[in-house]
Amino acid sequence: MYIHHAMQELTLDPDNWTDLRTLGHRMLDDMFEFLETVRERPVWQSVPASVRERLAAPLPVAPSCAAATYDEFKELILPYPTGNIHPRFWGWVMGTGSPVAMLADMLASGMNSHVAGYDQSASLVEDQVLRWLAELLGYPSTTSGILTSSGTAANLIGLAVARNIAAGHDVRARGLQHDGAPLIVYGSTETHSWAQKAVELLGIGSDSLRKVAVDANFEMRLDDLRDAIAADRANGLHPLCVIGTAGTVNTGATDDLRAIAKICDDERMWFHIDGAFGALARLAPKHRAIADGIELADSIAFDLHKWMYMPFEAGCALIRDAAAHRAAFALTPSYLTALERGIAAKPLEFAARGIDLSRNFKALKIWFSLKVHGSDLFGQLIDQNIDQAAYLRERIESEPSLELMAPVPLNVVCFRYHASDAINQEIVLRLQESGAAVPSSTMIGGRFAIRVAITNHRSRRSDFDFFIDEVLRHAGELEESR
Amino acid sequence: MYIHHAMQELTLDPDNWTDLRTLGHRMLDDMFEFLETVRERPVWQSVPASVRERLAAPLPVAPSCAAATYDEFKELILPYPTGNIHPRFWGWVMGTGSPVAMLADMLASGMNSHVAGYDQSASLVEDQVLRWLAELLGYPSTTSGILTSSGTAANLIGLAVARNIAAGHDVRARGLQHDGAPLIVYGSTETHSWAQKAVELLGIGSDSLRKVAVDANFEMRLDDLRDAIAADRANGLHPLCVIGTAGTVNTGATDDLRAIAKICDDERMWFHIDGAFGALARLAPKHRAIADGIELADSIAFDLHKWMYMPFEAGCALIRDAAAHRAAFALTPSYLTALERGIAAKPLEFAARGIDLSRNFKALKIWFSLKVHGSDLFGQLIDQNIDQAAYLRERIESEPSLELMAPVPLNVVCFRYHASDAINQEIVLRLQESGAAVPSSTMIGGRFAIRVAITNHRSRRSDFDFFIDEVLRHAGELEESR
Repeated sequence: MYIHHAMQELTLDPDNWTDLRTLGHRMLDDMFEFLETVRERPVWQSVPASVRERLAAPLPVAPSCAAATYDEFKELILPYPTGNIHPRFWGWVMGTGSPVAMLADMLASGMNSHVAGYDQSASLVEDQVLRWLAELLGYPSTTSGILTSSGTAANLIGLAVARNIAAGHDVRARGLQHDGAPLIVYGSTETHSWAQKAVELLGIGSDSLRKVAVDANFEMRLDDLRDAIAADRANGLHPLCVIGTAGTVNTGATDDLRAIAKICDDERMWFHIDGAFGALARLAPKHRAIADGIELADSIAFDLHKWMYMPFEAGCALIRDAAAHRAAFALTPSYLTALERGIAAKPLEFAARGIDLSRNFKALKIWFSLKVHGSDLFGQLIDQNIDQAAYLRERIESEPSLELMAPVPLNVVCFRYHASDAINQEIVLRLQESGAAVPSSTMIGGRFAIRVAITNHRSRRSDFDFFIDEVLRHAGELEESR
Repeated sequence: MYIHHAMQELTLDPDNWTDLRTLGHRMLDDMFEFLETVRERPVWQSVPASVRERLAAPLPVAPSCAAATYDEFKELILPYPTGNIHPRFWGWVMGTGSPVAMLADMLASGMNSHVAGYDQSASLVEDQVLRWLAELLGYPSTTSGILTSSGTAANLIGLAVARNIAAGHDVRARGLQHDGAPLIVYGSTETHSWAQKAVELLGIGSDSLRKVAVDANFEMRLDDLRDAIAADRANGLHPLCVIGTAGTVNTGATDDLRAIAKICDDERMWFHIDGAFGALARLAPKHRAIADGIELADSIAFDLHKWMYMPFEAGCALIRDAAAHRAAFALTPSYLTALERGIAAKPLEFAARGIDLSRNFKALKIWFSLKVHGSDLFGQLIDQNIDQAAYLRERIESEPSLELMAPVPLNVVCFRYHASDAINQEIVLRLQESGAAVPSSTMIGGRFAIRVAITNHRSRRSDFDFFIDEVLRHAGELEESR
C-alpha cells in the first residue's frame, strides 16, 4: 500500500494507458477513412441548429469518458469542417492539409517542444526548414527567418523590421509618439487587407498607407508609385517601405517586383513582398518566371498552409539582413538570460525574431512533408494548380454565357454568368449549399465575381468540368424560375 | 486504362493508404510509449554534434520513404525535446501537454479547419471554449475573446484594444504619428518582457512604459503608481493603461488587482491583467483567493499551455467590452464580404478579434480536455502544484545551507545555496546536464537564484525530495572540488 501512495497524486495521464491508446488508434483509423473518402462527401455543409445548440452546452465541471467525448466529436464537430480538405474547395486561399502532415502534427503535439530557442531538436529543425525555404525562394543562406501563425503575422514582422530599423531613429524606445516626419507605407489598391491591419497595429495608421492604382493586369502602376513617393517627400513625410505583392488575393496578379526593387533601391526604402501564395510559384518549374524578382526583397512573407498544402498554421517571414531582424525584436530580461551550458545555452533565437515567446513545433510538419514528398513534387503540384486555372479559364472563355472578369496569370479565376449580381451570388450560394463546390466571391470593377482560387493538391481537371456543369445548371434553373 | 487516366494527376495523398495508416499506428504506439515512460528518461539532454550535423542536411528535392523519414525522426528529433513533458521540468513557465490533447491535435490537423469565422463547427467550438474560460475566470457571458499563439500575442491584443479604443482619437486611421499627448502605459518592475515588446510593436515605445517599483512581496507599489500617473498628467502626457500581473514570472507575485481596478476606474484608464499562469489560480478551490480581483479587468491574457497543461499553442485574450474588441480590429474588404447564406454567412468573427486571418483549430484540444477531465480536475491540479511549491519552500527553509530568495505566494520558488553565484549557476547546469531536473534561473536583488516554476501535472511530491537531494549533492561535490 505504501509504495502506491505516491500514485494517488493527480495527473492528466490516464489511469489506464491501454484504453486511451486503443481509442487513439480508433481516432487514427477514422481520420484516415475521413481523408481517404473526402471526395465522396459534400464539400461543405451548414451546421444544423440542433448541433449549434449542443455546442452551446455549459462548462463541463466533472470528467467524462474519453470514448463518449470522441463520439460527440464525431457527431457534432467532424462532419462540419471548413471544407478546404475537399478536392472542390477553391474559396479564399486555403491549403488542403495532408495525411503525412497530420501525423507530424501529432508527433509535434506529443513532444510539446517550446520553440523559443534552447538546445533542443525542434530549434534545429526550424532553422533547417527556414534554410530550405530561403533556398527555394532564391534567398542567400545568411537570410534570417521565422515560422508564424499566419500570413498577417509574417507580413507584420517584415513591416515591423522595416519600421524599427529603416526609420532612422530609435522607434523601439521612442515609438512614433514624437515630432519626426510621419512614416509612409506604399502598396497597391490590390494589396491584401493585412497591410491595413499591420500599419494600424504598428501605430503608423491607415491614413499613412498609400494605395497606388493598378493597371489592367491589376499590377501596381510604377509611375504612380514614384509620383506618390515624390509628393510625400515634398510634403515632408518619410517614405519607409513599398509592399509588392506576388499573387494578389483578388486575381492572382504579381507586381513588377524587379522594378519595385529598383525604385526602393533608388529611394533608399525597404522592400517588402507579400508572397502569401504567389511566392511559391517560384518552386513551379513551368511557371517560375511568374515570381521573377521574388528574391530581391528586404523581407518576404508567405504561407506554407496555402500553396504548400500544410495544415494550419504555417506562415513564414524571411528577412535578408539577419542582424536587422534580431535588432528589431530581441530582448533579454534576467529570467531569460542564456547560461554557458545546459538547456538555455542556446539563446532564445526565435523569440528574438518575432512576437511570440511560447512557440510550438510548426517546423516538424514541413520537415516531414519536404522529406517524404521532396520539394520537386510541391513544384509540380503548384504547376498543376496553375494549369488547372488555365484550363478553367479556357472552359469559361468557350462558354458564351460566362464572362472572364480578370486575366488569369496564376491560380485565381474570376468570372460571372451573364446575368445580374444577385443571380451570380445565388449561384455561389447554391454551389456551396449543394456541397458540389466552394468558390468564394469578390467585387471587380464594382461587379460581383465568382472567384476560384486553386491551392488544392486533391483537385483534378475533371473537378473543374463538373464545376462548370454545375454553374451552368444552377444558372439555367435560376433563369427559368425568374 | 481510360478510367484511370484522372488518377495520374499528382497529389500529396498516398498511393497506398494502408501503408501510411500502418505507419501512423506505429507512430501513435511510439508516442504513447514515449509519454508513458517519460519518467524513466533524463528530463533533458543536449543535442549531440553528430545529430546537429545531420539536422543541417540540404534540401530534399526527391521523395523519401515515409517509414525511413520516421526512423530519422526517432533518431534525430524525438530524443531531444525541450523537456517540459517530464515530471521534473520546472524551468521558465511551460505546461506539460497531455495524451488526450495530443490526440485532439491530431484530429484538428486532419480536419484542418480555417478558423477565421465561417459557418463551421470549429468556430462554434472556439466560442464555446471561450465562454467556458470566461466563466471560469468570473467574467460575464457577454465577454469577447480569442485564442492566440502565445501570451505575448494575447497581451498584445489587450493592449491594442486599449490603445485603439481608449486613446480617445482614431488611432487606427491616424496612428500615433500626430501631435496628440503621448500615451503612457504602466506596469511594475516585475512585469514580463512581453510588455516591452508590445509597446514597441504598437508604436508607443518603451520610453513610454513606466515600470513602477514593487514592495517586499514583489507587488506593485500603488502609491508609486498613483504618483507616476499624476506626474505624467502634469507633464501633459496621456496615461492610457495599467498592466496588473497575476503571477509574476520571477516569483509568482500577484499585484493588488482590486486596488489597481479602483485606480483605473478613478483615472478613467484601461485595466489590463497579464494572468499568463496566475489567472488560472482562480480555478483552484483551495487557493482561488490568490487571484482575487482577476474578474475586474477590461482585458486579460492567460495561457492554457501553461497552467492548464495544454500542448503549445493555446494563449487566450478576453475583452470585457465585445464592441470595443471588434472595433479595434475588424476589417471588411470585398473578398471577405459576408453573404446571406453559405459558408461565409457567418462573419469573420475571429479574424475581427485579433491579428491572424488564417487560424487553426486550437480550441479542440481545450474542448476535449475540459470534457474528458472536467474543469474541477484542472483546479485540483493547480492546487496540487501550489501545494508542491509550499512543500518545496518548507524543504528549503529546513535546510540550513539553502536560502529562500523570495516569498512563495504561488507556484514559483526562488532559492540559492549558501555559496557564490558561480556555484549556484553550476548547480543549475549540473542538474540540467545530468537529466535529473530542469529548474531555470533568474536574478533577484542582484543575486543569482535557482528558480522552480511548477506548472506540471506529472510532478509528484517525491520529485521535489529528489530535487533537493540532488541540489545538495551537487553543492557538496562543488564545495569539495574547490
